[in-house]
This record gives sequence, C-alpha cells and structure tokens, in this order.
Amino acid sequence: MNAADIIVKMVKDRWQGNLKNFNTALDSLTDEQLQAEISPGRNRGVYLIGHLMAVHDDMLVLLNLGEKQHPEFHTLFLTSPDKSTLLPDAKELRELWRRHSQVVNQKIDAMKADEWFAKHTAVSDEDFSHEPHRNKLNILLTRTTHLAYHTGQFVLLTKNLKEAS
Amino acid sequence: MNAADIIVKMVKDRWQGNLKNFNTALDSLTDEQLQAEISPGRNRGVYLIGHLMAVHDDMLVLLNLGEKQHPEFHTLFLTSPDKSTLLPDAKELRELWRRHSQVVNQKIDAMKADEWFAKHTAVSDEDFSHEPHRNKLNILLTRTTHLAYHTGQFVLLTKNLKEAS
Repeated sequence: MNAADIIVKMVKDRWQGNLKNFNTALDSLTDEQLQAEISPGRNRGVYLIGHLMAVHDDMLVLLNLGEKQHPEFHTLFLTSPDKSTLLPDAKELRELWRRHSQVVNQKIDAMKADEWFAKHTAVSDEDFSHEPHRNKLNILLTRTTHLAYHTGQFVLLTKNLKEAS
Repeated sequence: MNAADIIVKMVKDRWQGNLKNFNTALDSLTDEQLQAEISPGRNRGVYLIGHLMAVHDDMLVLLNLGEKQHPEFHTLFLTSPDKSTLLPDAKELRELWRRHSQVVNQKIDAMKADEWFAKHTAVSDEDFSHEPHRNKLNILLTRTTHLAYHTGQFVLLTKNLKEAS
C-alpha cells in the first residue's frame, strides 16, 4: 500500500463511517418523525436529507463524475431555507437518498487513488499549480466534515422523539 | 510541496476550519447561554465544551504529544452524561478551552509532515505493519469529524437564543 492508497483509504473510511452514522439514525426514524425540527425553530429532518443530497450532487460535478442527479434540489435545499417551499415528502426523500448514496458511492469507488490528487473542476490549472491541496480528495474531505456537522444535528431527532413516545 | 505536505495541510486546514466555526459560535454566546441545552433534553453547551476538551486531551496522548492537560475531564465529560455531575462553570470552561486549544495547536504545528504518517500510540507495531492507515494523521482526521459533529449541535445554541431574546 503506497502513501496515496493509504490517505485515500483514510478519507473514504471517514466518508463511509459518517454516512453509516447518518443512515443508522435515518433507519430508526419514521417518515412522520422526519418532519420534526432538530431543535425548536430549526431545520427539519426532511430538509437535512435534501440539503445533503444537494451538496453531494455538487460534489459529483466537482469530482468530474457526471451530471447532478437532482439539479432542482439546488434551489429547494441550498438557496431556500426550510419551511419556505414545498418539499418532496419524507417517504420519497428517504428513497431518493438511498439511491443517491448508492450512485455517489459507486462513482467514488471506481476512482483510482491517483485521480484523487488531480484538481477538482472548480479550480483553474494556474491556481492548482500553486495550490495543489485543491484536489478531488479535498472535496471529499470537506464534504465529509459537512456531513458530520449535519449528522450531529440529525441524530437529535432520534432520542428526543424516542423519549417523547 | 510533496504529497505528504499536501495531505497534512488538507487535514490540518479542516481541523482549523472546524475549530474556527466552533469558536465563532462560542464567542457569540454568553456564559448564561452556554448553560442551555442544544435541543430539549439533550446536552448543554458547557458539557460539549468539556467533552471536546476531553477528546482532544486523549488525542494528545494518541499523538505522543505529552500528558493530558485535564485528566479529570475523562470522568466528567466522557464516562458521565451531562447533568449527572457538577461541572466547572461556563466562564471557567471557556477560558480552559481557549488555553487548551492553544496548547493543542502549538503541539500539532510543531510536528513535521512525515511524523503524521507514523503509528499512533494505541496501535501495536505488528498491527501497524498490516494497517498503515492507523497513523497519527488519521487520529487528527477522526477528531476533526468528531469536532464537526458536535459543532453542528453547538451552533444550535446561537440562533435559538438570539431568536428568544
């Protein structure tokens, strides 16, 4: 295992570990529970699922792995705050999320270790020559900490609602 | 910049970025606000500060960077749930956190890129020979996603309380 393989494994393990944490919480929640706010006045579970899908869709483009799966989610879950638009229902979002994660992971797993150190699609050749950390692996890394941030919020739905029931 | 320098910079940037997010939220909260729960029935702000210090103290040991700064925090903030013991007050925790982050960052910044790829202190030579991803950089990476997870929760204190005031 060379250095590139090792570091790519480290970041991919974190990505998968955080996805697993999110999915464990998701699987424990009913569709109705996903309509609850993570804390009074804050985002609902359904919004967080869509928000993560929108961010992971952007990631596909940055990694040069193809088109977005749900381009309409950009407006719904990135530029519009929760409770300002009509969202897909929880049952549908849950199924879309499952399929989306599969697609993203298949594409990520097909990448060779060296490809991860190439520039992502939003940085110029010129800038990349001075800033070689702006590579594809850094995109996966920043999206992993973003996922962890919202997973910390999403799990709040599970215990609160268990206690209330 | 060689490959090791690049990847170490990527992970350290994430660590610093997430610390900054946490500190921005912390600086916006009063000591009184830190006594609030992040969501009804969940951990309070003061507990999260201490919990992160306890985890970052363990990190110092795993990175072979010296003794824990607050060994007594292990019981208070890792093995005991919030609201089960008497905690240091918010003003004190805030100051301890500030100094603790300084110490941790000074030690981290003094490490050379190559040192990050050496084994951490909780893995044997034998295991490390088969699992070279169990290195010190992976410790910083996992603690960075842990920090992001709790920062996602900690920021819930800011807006809720602003709205309530």
